[in-house]
Amino acid sequence: MISLSLTKLDKLLHPDSVAIIGASPDKKKVGYAALKNMLLSGFMGKLFAINPKAAQYGEIEGVKVYSSINDISDHIDLAVICIPPKFIPSLMEDLGKKGVSYAAIITAGFKETGVEGAELEKKIVEIAQKHGIRVVGPNILGVIDTSAPMNASFAERSPIKGEVSFLSQSGALLTGILDWSCAEGIGYSSFVSLGNKADLDETDFIDALADDENTVAILAYLESINRGPEFVKVCKEVTKKKPVIVIKSGRSEAGSRAASSHTGSMTGTDTTYDVAFEKCGVIRADTTQELFDMAFAFSYMPIPNGNKIVIITNAGGPGILATDAAETFGLELATISPEIKAKMKEFLPSAANFNNPIDALGTAQAEDYGKILELSLQDEGVHGVIIILTPQAMTEGQETADTIVEIRNKYPEKPIITVFIGGELLGPSIYYLKKNRIPCFPHPERGVRAMASLVEYSRIRNRTVEAIPEFDVDKIKVDSIFQKVRKDNRVTLLGTEAIDVAKAYGIYTPDTRLAKTAEEAADLAEKIGFPVVMKITSPDIIHKTDIGGVKLNIKSKEEAVSTFEEIMQSAKKHHPDSKLLAIDVQKMEKAGKELIVGSTKDSQFGPLVMVGLGGVYINYFKDVAFGLAPLTKSEAQEMLQRTKVYTLLKGVRGEAPSDIEAVIDTLLRIASLVSDFSEIKELDINPFFVYQEGFGVSALDVKITLNDLKELRE
Amino acid sequence: MISLSLTKLDKLLHPDSVAIIGASPDKKKVGYAALKNMLLSGFMGKLFAINPKAAQYGEIEGVKVYSSINDISDHIDLAVICIPPKFIPSLMEDLGKKGVSYAAIITAGFKETGVEGAELEKKIVEIAQKHGIRVVGPNILGVIDTSAPMNASFAERSPIKGEVSFLSQSGALLTGILDWSCAEGIGYSSFVSLGNKADLDETDFIDALADDENTVAILAYLESINRGPEFVKVCKEVTKKKPVIVIKSGRSEAGSRAASSHTGSMTGTDTTYDVAFEKCGVIRADTTQELFDMAFAFSYMPIPNGNKIVIITNAGGPGILATDAAETFGLELATISPEIKAKMKEFLPSAANFNNPIDALGTAQAEDYGKILELSLQDEGVHGVIIILTPQAMTEGQETADTIVEIRNKYPEKPIITVFIGGELLGPSIYYLKKNRIPCFPHPERGVRAMASLVEYSRIRNRTVEAIPEFDVDKIKVDSIFQKVRKDNRVTLLGTEAIDVAKAYGIYTPDTRLAKTAEEAADLAEKIGFPVVMKITSPDIIHKTDIGGVKLNIKSKEEAVSTFEEIMQSAKKHHPDSKLLAIDVQKMEKAGKELIVGSTKDSQFGPLVMVGLGGVYINYFKDVAFGLAPLTKSEAQEMLQRTKVYTLLKGVRGEAPSDIEAVIDTLLRIASLVSDFSEIKELDINPFFVYQEGFGVSALDVKITLNDLKELRE
Repeated sequence: MISLSLTKLDKLLHPDSVAIIGASPDKKKVGYAALKNMLLSGFMGKLFAINPKAAQYGEIEGVKVYSSINDISDHIDLAVICIPPKFIPSLMEDLGKKGVSYAAIITAGFKETGVEGAELEKKIVEIAQKHGIRVVGPNILGVIDTSAPMNASFAERSPIKGEVSFLSQSGALLTGILDWSCAEGIGYSSFVSLGNKADLDETDFIDALADDENTVAILAYLESINRGPEFVKVCKEVTKKKPVIVIKSGRSEAGSRAASSHTGSMTGTDTTYDVAFEKCGVIRADTTQELFDMAFAFSYMPIPNGNKIVIITNAGGPGILATDAAETFGLELATISPEIKAKMKEFLPSAANFNNPIDALGTAQAEDYGKILELSLQDEGVHGVIIILTPQAMTEGQETADTIVEIRNKYPEKPIITVFIGGELLGPSIYYLKKNRIPCFPHPERGVRAMASLVEYSRIRNRTVEAIPEFDVDKIKVDSIFQKVRKDNRVTLLGTEAIDVAKAYGIYTPDTRLAKTAEEAADLAEKIGFPVVMKITSPDIIHKTDIGGVKLNIKSKEEAVSTFEEIMQSAKKHHPDSKLLAIDVQKMEKAGKELIVGSTKDSQFGPLVMVGLGGVYINYFKDVAFGLAPLTKSEAQEMLQRTKVYTLLKGVRGEAPSDIEAVIDTLLRIASLVSDFSEIKELDINPFFVYQEGFGVSALDVKITLNDLKELRE
Repeated sequence: MISLSLTKLDKLLHPDSVAIIGASPDKKKVGYAALKNMLLSGFMGKLFAINPKAAQYGEIEGVKVYSSINDISDHIDLAVICIPPKFIPSLMEDLGKKGVSYAAIITAGFKETGVEGAELEKKIVEIAQKHGIRVVGPNILGVIDTSAPMNASFAERSPIKGEVSFLSQSGALLTGILDWSCAEGIGYSSFVSLGNKADLDETDFIDALADDENTVAILAYLESINRGPEFVKVCKEVTKKKPVIVIKSGRSEAGSRAASSHTGSMTGTDTTYDVAFEKCGVIRADTTQELFDMAFAFSYMPIPNGNKIVIITNAGGPGILATDAAETFGLELATISPEIKAKMKEFLPSAANFNNPIDALGTAQAEDYGKILELSLQDEGVHGVIIILTPQAMTEGQETADTIVEIRNKYPEKPIITVFIGGELLGPSIYYLKKNRIPCFPHPERGVRAMASLVEYSRIRNRTVEAIPEFDVDKIKVDSIFQKVRKDNRVTLLGTEAIDVAKAYGIYTPDTRLAKTAEEAADLAEKIGFPVVMKITSPDIIHKTDIGGVKLNIKSKEEAVSTFEEIMQSAKKHHPDSKLLAIDVQKMEKAGKELIVGSTKDSQFGPLVMVGLGGVYINYFKDVAFGLAPLTKSEAQEMLQRTKVYTLLKGVRGEAPSDIEAVIDTLLRIASLVSDFSEIKELDINPFFVYQEGFGVSALDVKITLNDLKELRE
């Protein structure tokens, strides 16, 4: 991988010189559209057209045509490529020799078409990397930046200049959004089609746009994420500076199938995306409507300092709808102080509702709206205001819009969202609000959702940056156990091995020893102290309980001997070919609250840690939560708090609280273990007992599976 | 209550003669607006203006003014009232004497303002009922019907004529919707402001509009439902004929508070609304956006015969977004048959996706869209089609719209929803589609949601009408038990009493007998057969286990004697003042899967039946489902299927399935019991054991509480 320059894609988004490779005078061709768009965009740098038929064409739209890039003496920052796939490898060599920095390959016909296309794509990227060229695409609509300004795309038009950048893994969606947003009046700073993401991907652009002073928020439509861990790392940083809002498609199972047939990319499970986005502060939009409503809010409004809002309305019904939505999206209705109520009573009718939502009644004039808005914005306990207006007989739509714009300019530090319910009568005032950078929505719920996204981002930005806790662990021990497992050609650890790994990372496990004979079992049981538990152990046996392989409460040496024989007999009956049969003898622990903790691996984002309700019916209650390793303490806490069993651990029905700290400590240690040893494919601690506060936890049974070596070699 | 005439509000929505009481020449007054609106609406009947200053005014806008209703010799169907509250009672007497059928009271200042207003409102309704006048309001915007045509409201304008009726408990929301829908091009048949619902309410109008041939769908914004059981009964009938779609506000706790301060109406808990709506087939919209998107779909499209849809797109990304949404909303992507695939391969490029979603690629022309659409509509396995279009270089927006309109006219029996992602370029074609009655949305998710609502209604309409099962029960026995409880001045039944009630309704309970002395307990235990369970019983003790009041597995007469003393001692310690202490001796049943079943009462909708996971932590897992009594067998089944514990009952991890039929039978019997005896306030069977299939269930502990007589008297 070539490391990014310090300016991070600056000469891609703001190039000084651009060459259109495959520029054409044929108005139906992409090579014409790209050249024309560059000209129309107001691009101030040097623009070159390249076509082998240079002699014939002379110039296109006034731009001189060169037959080859080699004929140009100037340095080229960006080559926009519109020629057929098969010519691109040799072109890339030429670009490399010339020292071109960036290539945007509009041409399609690569990975998305099958194996052959994928091979060609790989070859092109290899050549690019050899020469240090960074590539956007292939298979893209293009790259547009309204502040450069430049439009290196074959889109039908340029976006309005604005504050949000939009990255899209679907070029066609970009064309639709472009057309739609022009009508709606949403402006963009950068507009990037990601295409097949052969080289530059979402993470690169998010990283670069974090430093782009023309971008206040980064929006993205993604079907997959190329480099999960890097994405998380970069977004964690970026979201401290500006919001990143993603709509991730392929949510449903059916959707995932469509995604893989569309871009040939493997998508992770949807839960992992939720977990990863939460970890790195990416806001996930559920629908495209939401995504663009948020774009409005972030473009025009500041980030609030909290979640307490005031709703002002001239109609009860929409006020209640907004209140419902506020609760759904985690907004709190601010309490209106007696002082403010008293002031409002001076000018509002007594029948008005002075509580939040403040219902100024149908007779409310622009002046009333203005006074209530100003009182609310002045109140320190209020973080944002939603203004609802319905066009009643006495309603002053335009005057109210005027007043709102005026007051917003006076108090620019708190967000204001408006909901003007109407179309024809209110049309002009809605237009006026939008033109004056006040978000305005036709439905209360959409306004509330937009405000909630601002609040959500405020929470994300204010999260304290926490260090990953470090533990005093015995890595060498773990390494030697894994080496032994590998040497035995196994992937599954024996019970005692897994317990030793857990111990090496400071996870409490009961005294457990391996017995190969009945006599040994009896002796070990005596040493451990009765009562003991005896469990079959074998790399071949996964479900020990199901074959009678676990016996509890063994109280004497004699019982230990007979139990040994009994378990062995049953195991041999169920697994006649198993060679490595032995018995784990374990100190019998008193029962605690039963949880399951563990780890699994996501193909895109790496190891996930899990915690949840244990017991026989784990799979049916599915009361579990996930976190991406490594975990901070807050992340581990929040994970646990997301489960229902957390309520039980806090103590209900007069029970004492459980040792929640010890559970969190275990989660952190598991996260540390799976982060240190990437060869761990799966880890399960089940049952995992939690005792009363101060009395810790106990990992009764630990299962660890390593990656298949064959998989690793791939 | 006056019963509705056979024509059901016909002369209210389609009056032959209307009098505006309080008609005014002052253009700022409601009495002017109402008169003007009637004139502008194209109303063909007789219109009268009433104002005491008749002599001074002469006529208003060409309508002769009478000083009193008594001066008019014609019959009046509808009186529209715009005079101050205090004059209305005497007016109502006049209207009554004159034989006026309907009064729409626009005037505000009644229940919504406090106690005094509520009194006046009550008085007016009493007078109206005495004379057989049906009242809309008070506190309304008015009543509009575009087919009459008539506009008896002070709205700023009339709605476009259309197919859906809209009822609203918020007049101001109506004004907003009116203004907005005119801009969006949605038409309405009736537009009714419900106001305080002092007489006519949502149920009356839904019932009336069911027979209105100009209405294909009924929409409503409701903050409360006046008569729950009647609403359910009426909607059950109506939704067999046409869809009823409701947005119910006051969803959140905060929202509920706002609702009660707004209309003075009591709102039930939100869960009950979900249960009631599902029972009677009302579709619940979550947001106003959804409500009106559905209005578009129902106005223009037929009801599909199933949930299998085809998605046609010229862009992969939006296709995946639509697929995600389809899964969320329960739509299935139809399988494309090999024959159809073969046909598509004749005209689509090989790189196209021939599976569903069908991606015709960016080069797709109007003709391609047309052919795929026609192939899909001809396929018997396809119930509806969603067409997505993004404006790419070769896209033919207008031609595609033309083609869609043409084909839809050829195949009117299957719904088509379009998603044209764009604004400026696609603007004209979007307008053309809507004008030609094809719903068109800017975002894929909204299009899918609209299609899903059509499918949802198809499911509702096709549900078989099932009889409420009848059981051979002993009502006299139950009645006598309740009488005894009342005589004792109690509301809580003793354990054995409650068990006898359950038995009388055929619910299996273990043999349980009441013992007042230790000796009696020992004798009864012997008769029942050991082992037995002994439980304290007293109207004062609710949580028996918590005070050591339940002892299991008592194996001998001696043990029974000592246990009796032990329990009594503990009970006396915890409840020293309790007089009615005794012990229930019960046959000890073997343990089964532990459920809870029961019933509680909703203030709006009556008795609810509940089933869910039992055990100590019921309140923390909240794995329960509700149904409104009385239940049909399918309803009881569906209730149980909504719980997670249902999966366990079906048998998991190799366990035999449980006796699900017996659980359903119990739910039906409980529903029957609580429907027969409205005095049952609460009923709890907990624990409720379920055994293996064929081995039934057992109601171990039954608690029944009756309504407080004081409450009943209120």
